[in-house]
Amino acid sequence: MNDALVLRADEGAVARLTLNNPSKLNALSDAMLAALLSALDEVAEDKAIRVVILNGAGKVFCAGHDLKEMQAARSDQDNGRAAWLDLFARCSAVMARLQSLPQPVIAQAHGIATAAGCQLVATCDLAVAAEGTKFGVNGVNIGLFCSTPMVALSRNIHRKQAFEMLTTGEFIDAERAREVGLINRVATGDLAEETMKLAKTIAAKLGSAVRIGKQAFYEQAQMPVAEAYAYTGEVMAVNMALDDTDEGIKAFLEKRKPNWS
Amino acid sequence: MNDALVLRADEGAVARLTLNNPSKLNALSDAMLAALLSALDEVAEDKAIRVVILNGAGKVFCAGHDLKEMQAARSDQDNGRAAWLDLFARCSAVMARLQSLPQPVIAQAHGIATAAGCQLVATCDLAVAAEGTKFGVNGVNIGLFCSTPMVALSRNIHRKQAFEMLTTGEFIDAERAREVGLINRVATGDLAEETMKLAKTIAAKLGSAVRIGKQAFYEQAQMPVAEAYAYTGEVMAVNMALDDTDEGIKAFLEKRKPNWS
Amino acid sequence: MNDALVLRADEGAVARLTLNNPSKLNALSDAMLAALLSALDEVAEDKAIRVVILNGAGKVFCAGHDLKEMQAARSDQDNGRAAWLDLFARCSAVMARLQSLPQPVIAQAHGIATAAGCQLVATCDLAVAAEGTKFGVNGVNIGLFCSTPMVALSRNIHRKQAFEMLTTGEFIDAERAREVGLINRVATGDLAEETMKLAKTIAAKLGSAVRIGKQAFYEQAQMPVAEAYAYTGEVMAVNMALDDTDEGIKAFLEKRKPNWS
Repeated sequence: MNDALVLRADEGAVARLTLNNPSKLNALSDAMLAALLSALDEVAEDKAIRVVILNGAGKVFCAGHDLKEMQAARSDQDNGRAAWLDLFARCSAVMARLQSLPQPVIAQAHGIATAAGCQLVATCDLAVAAEGTKFGVNGVNIGLFCSTPMVALSRNIHRKQAFEMLTTGEFIDAERAREVGLINRVATGDLAEETMKLAKTIAAKLGSAVRIGKQAFYEQAQMPVAEAYAYTGEVMAVNMALDDTDEGIKAFLEKRKPNWS
Repeated sequence: MNDALVLRADEGAVARLTLNNPSKLNALSDAMLAALLSALDEVAEDKAIRVVILNGAGKVFCAGHDLKEMQAARSDQDNGRAAWLDLFARCSAVMARLQSLPQPVIAQAHGIATAAGCQLVATCDLAVAAEGTKFGVNGVNIGLFCSTPMVALSRNIHRKQAFEMLTTGEFIDAERAREVGLINRVATGDLAEETMKLAKTIAAKLGSAVRIGKQAFYEQAQMPVAEAYAYTGEVMAVNMALDDTDEGIKAFLEKRKPNWS
Repeated sequence: MNDALVLRADEGAVARLTLNNPSKLNALSDAMLAALLSALDEVAEDKAIRVVILNGAGKVFCAGHDLKEMQAARSDQDNGRAAWLDLFARCSAVMARLQSLPQPVIAQAHGIATAAGCQLVATCDLAVAAEGTKFGVNGVNIGLFCSTPMVALSRNIHRKQAFEMLTTGEFIDAERAREVGLINRVATGDLAEETMKLAKTIAAKLGSAVRIGKQAFYEQAQMPVAEAYAYTGEVMAVNMALDDTDEGIKAFLEKRKPNWS
């Protein structure tokens, strides 16, 4: 048995990263955040990988931060402030890394995804969940409003729906999460299989085009429309210039499969 | 009977503000806007209040601006321009006050919510409506496009759905309003009871955490992602430093109820 | 038979523009983009037109760019780069023109709307589609990520839903397109009739108010809230100052139909 906090298993061009601390509900402790960042950095450099799946070992996907660790910092000279600022900065860096990763990342959620665990789902490019999975940003229940998770959540779903989750602390189920736009699909059969199927669909595309597109997706989202068009026009021209794109278009026009490098 | 334009009735930590000019369909006249702003300012200072409900007396929630008053300004030396600019500035100030209020505000809508009345619903943090409630931004029907209401509307629902409401002037019902994200819940039973239930759910949380979270919600929404994370990381650290949050987390780890001050 | 690339047919205050190159699936070739821009510029100046419908001749609405034309540019001295940059700039200019057009534009989609064809649907102010219409941003299938279409798509629908369409290349049907917010209505009967009905509903409004409102819609969408309110307050005052708006409000207060100029 592997006792690493993040496991990696590749299947063809798909890397599966598994949060592996089931006894702590895969809490995003200092060590877990470091392990996940490291695993993401490694995958980013791996040219053979075209899609990443992120899931959790045990009964739940991820239950958020490690509260015991956060409480321990209260005995610091500054009562915890520096440790907490550092924690949230490192957590935000992991979220940013998921979106700056060259490959699309699919959250494969089951059981529970709460607080920073729900933020992970919101931050991944895509998400598939098992029926019955519960999603919540319920820090408010213990007096700690999910202010960092809401950055990701409020960029995924409508304003009133996000505000309700944040202030009531109530869970929504997988079907509702799909309706509001927090996840893409509810697996009706085997979760891992259906997530892998989606991953392989994307892995079958031209990897360089997907990388170009993913990067542009988040860049243009923050620009005024005119600027976004100027930027993506340039992106399209770069994409067109790829030899594999030349081949892809030729194959399409000749009604055959492309021979990509 | 109270003839104030805005009534206030508290139930525990919940303040109910009622637009109280039913014969004018609770129109947002100069006097009504002033009364509402004043009531909001008062509630903002009341530390005992943790949630606000906004509803309307009589048959409808609110039918928008007071058209007779607006028409009367045409006899001004400048044909009304200064009066209208002032009106829209004051109306926008009320909308801004709803979002800058430390406490969450729940719109409790029934009957009709049109034009600036629909804007009120869109602007409140949360909204519950009775079955059969009609929502519209129908100023276009009388030649006055709902340009200020669309600021709130288009930040609540998808673009095409907002554009359709604005240019057709057609109403949507409560169920459709829930689907598109304009409201949170359709009351199947008693509207006031179901709204109060939601209010009490939120009022039972740590008020200081909810206040921190509500403020951060609207601040971060207007920032680029990286800036939003830097800002909310700081917000989380401030939240963690509260004694009541310390107690809330301790209680959770000890599996007991928190004793909040 | 008219062999112009874009046909125009007026019905009262509604101008119907038809992409008219069915043998090429109404591809947005250089010539088609020029013809469409020219037709839009002409409609913009036509004071009698209050609404525009955009549809496609033949079996599909529009299948995106003209790939053969794009491939031909590879033999240029710079291998195509200047030609592609120019193409995307011109295509983006057409998209911008749709939104800067004084009149609302309704996409009437049938068959297939893919890549830049789907971008057209996303860019139009409103969209109606026949049952069975397929929408996709499937450039990724041939190695050319739909980076410019995603500018419009990601400003219409939720982030994860857009990302899925862009990276899987899979189609969504009309009903799903309505659910996610990409289109307004699925025609259950005759598509052209139902689209015309929507067009006439809007054409019956005060044209000057609709023009003011459409322009303000896209302007305010890119502003911070406070700025958006300052701007739209001014817009409302300008709208109020119109003689026809005076008449529209008077007629409403007197419970009669307005006599608009």
